[in-house]
Amino acid sequence: MSSDCIFCRIVAGEIPATIVYQDDQVTAFKDIQPQATVHILVIPNQHVASLNEADRLDPALLGRVLQAAATVAREAGIAESGYRLVTNTGPDSGQTVHHLHFHVLGGNPLRLPLG
Amino acid sequence: MSSDCIFCRIVAGEIPATIVYQDDQVTAFKDIQPQATVHILVIPNQHVASLNEADRLDPALLGRVLQAAATVAREAGIAESGYRLVTNTGPDSGQTVHHLHFHVLGGNPLRLPLG
Repeated sequence: MSSDCIFCRIVAGEIPATIVYQDDQVTAFKDIQPQATVHILVIPNQHVASLNEADRLDPALLGRVLQAAATVAREAGIAESGYRLVTNTGPDSGQTVHHLHFHVLGGNPLRLPLG
Repeated sequence: MSSDCIFCRIVAGEIPATIVYQDDQVTAFKDIQPQATVHILVIPNQHVASLNEADRLDPALLGRVLQAAATVAREAGIAESGYRLVTNTGPDSGQTVHHLHFHVLGGNPLRLPLG
């Protein structure tokens, strides 16, 4: 845990958030500035800054984050209508919080193109 | 392998593609309709339709797909400038090929919002 990381503090329960899923490896909570009808963030409880540090995590943990994202989408009722999973890394992407997080976006038709 | 899946056929070498990374579990190749300066698709060699079927895959395999995406971004020279990783699931997202795939997009500032 990084004590100055807002997402680590959400995992630890030190900052309030609307948590929709949590286990010993993964936490999911509603984005406070939603960019779609459904907008949930799914994160590994373990702190890494971004996908650039993916090699520092156990591959099975990374995979469980993705499986949790699918679970969260199903429980939000958007598995069949569709959703987008996004993780941003670095300045060109608009990454603002430097704790690896996956956006689950859905509940309405999503914009294209992706880039 | 699904014989009518274009991505399975790319993995098998039956359809040409500009492959930038391949091992026994993961394949990455250039998107033929790029939506950013760098646009690479990273897929598990094993066929699943989308993230909705993530539970059918070994979590460690899913994690290795993400680690390969980070490797591909580094080799494309966009690890520091930044990139976005996206997977689309179902109609609202614009998913067109029904083999789980992650878009790696970068090389220029990417659009926001995400939804």
